[in-house]
Amino acid sequence: MSGRLCIIGVGLIGGSVALAARQKGLFSEIIGVDQNSENLREAEQRGVINGGFEDVTDLPGNFDVVMLATPVGDMQRLFELLKPRWFSSTVYTDVGSTKESVVEAANHVFGSVPSNFVAGHPIAGSEKSGIGAARADLYQAKRVILTPCAKTGAGPLQDVRDLWEQIGAVVSVMEAHHHDQIFAATSHLPHIVAFALVDMLGRKDEQDEILKYAAGGFRDFTRIASSNPRMWLDICMGNRKELMCLIEGFKNELSRINEMLENNERDKLLDSFQFARDTRQRFLERFDVD
Amino acid sequence: MSGRLCIIGVGLIGGSVALAARQKGLFSEIIGVDQNSENLREAEQRGVINGGFEDVTDLPGNFDVVMLATPVGDMQRLFELLKPRWFSSTVYTDVGSTKESVVEAANHVFGSVPSNFVAGHPIAGSEKSGIGAARADLYQAKRVILTPCAKTGAGPLQDVRDLWEQIGAVVSVMEAHHHDQIFAATSHLPHIVAFALVDMLGRKDEQDEILKYAAGGFRDFTRIASSNPRMWLDICMGNRKELMCLIEGFKNELSRINEMLENNERDKLLDSFQFARDTRQRFLERFDVD
Repeated sequence: MSGRLCIIGVGLIGGSVALAARQKGLFSEIIGVDQNSENLREAEQRGVINGGFEDVTDLPGNFDVVMLATPVGDMQRLFELLKPRWFSSTVYTDVGSTKESVVEAANHVFGSVPSNFVAGHPIAGSEKSGIGAARADLYQAKRVILTPCAKTGAGPLQDVRDLWEQIGAVVSVMEAHHHDQIFAATSHLPHIVAFALVDMLGRKDEQDEILKYAAGGFRDFTRIASSNPRMWLDICMGNRKELMCLIEGFKNELSRINEMLENNERDKLLDSFQFARDTRQRFLERFDVD
Repeated sequence: MSGRLCIIGVGLIGGSVALAARQKGLFSEIIGVDQNSENLREAEQRGVINGGFEDVTDLPGNFDVVMLATPVGDMQRLFELLKPRWFSSTVYTDVGSTKESVVEAANHVFGSVPSNFVAGHPIAGSEKSGIGAARADLYQAKRVILTPCAKTGAGPLQDVRDLWEQIGAVVSVMEAHHHDQIFAATSHLPHIVAFALVDMLGRKDEQDEILKYAAGGFRDFTRIASSNPRMWLDICMGNRKELMCLIEGFKNELSRINEMLENNERDKLLDSFQFARDTRQRFLERFDVD
């Protein structure tokens, strides 16, 4: 490509797209939008973007691709700001971790999802956030899911697919609702569980001692509890129906284990641990994108 | 030291003690006991032990230190086998992850805990198990907790402390009951939660897709679900009273979060995530032994 890319929200996710696109020479110019002027300046100084705006309403119109890379809770407001200057020649996409909420926001603002908007979700990230954590290779061999609607144009879908593939990602397509079901299980529930566990232990009287004697297993188990709280608030709220269902299911699973402990059902508990270990082994064997 | 060390159970934990003691030249001879003859042969071939026995009743008596490094569920049976050949000149210790259950097993077999038995727990390990995972530096800068009873001799306690310190560990002393309370929170509950979550997701119809789209966060969060199931069965059973209490507490925490989701209480949920993140940050700052 020789066109222009605009990244709205120059943090870990958006900044990494910009870095990778620049490394591959995909655009002649990359412009950033970020309410945080310091972030914007850092992105410019690191050569992530050619220039930037703090306010999305100051944006000129001639972009080939505009990527919304803010927390999902900002999407509706962004759509409202973009609506008066929504260009049919531009392809719009987002990187939100929930997809139904983004589709709903677009429906709410535009009446229906514009044909040149392609909802997307890169399965990559880190518990670190901000432009300082951005890396050109963040999407290398990582999955990206696109969730087009019935009205989404084939051209915009192909453009967004091409962009991700050119920066190393492996693209899948699925429905937004199905996406949200899968990610409630694989990502949102684990985050809730990690936040909840660390929250609970941090409120105990003996928390200092608990943290003192916690070891490497605890560090890894709780890594995702260091994730950006605001971003995860939006994700959990954006997928709360699925998530609430899974939390109830998980509470039942814990009750089942408590019963096994209470009734001294060693064989059942061992089966359960063994099954979990085998399941994780299957995950590890296919973890590298196949 | 120039004496003899016996390790009963030559796996990750016992094998790593043997490797470290050998590297430091602490004993003239290290003998292993393991029911698994293949494990024993591998330990001998790797130079971890000088020789070994499959049966603890074949052990000669002249050891300076005997370390019980089997799953905690084996302790009572081991004490029974050792009782007829319990030497007052030997110092006995263990490495079990629960301490009240070990003290109870000793009480049950001997009437009271022998003065030359020092219960201990090294806070080091891995989701990997077996002699193949043993490393001479496993205990370097790691914590070891000793939980002596009122009757424990000062000499044996000092000997066990010296052994751990000489292979790089930082030793603390506390009561067995207090130990079990702390580790129910910091280690046993996280393991149960990880096992339970992977177990639940592995039983879902869409489990293939869930695992397909799981990413690095899921891998780290569930790492402890790959831990040795038999060992963790014993640990959970050995500390089940504390553990059951904490599981109930954790279910309440999850209910609290589900209520926030249901009632759209964004501020409360954000506070909770933020508190968890701050708590983990405090943990990271003191993670290296201070």
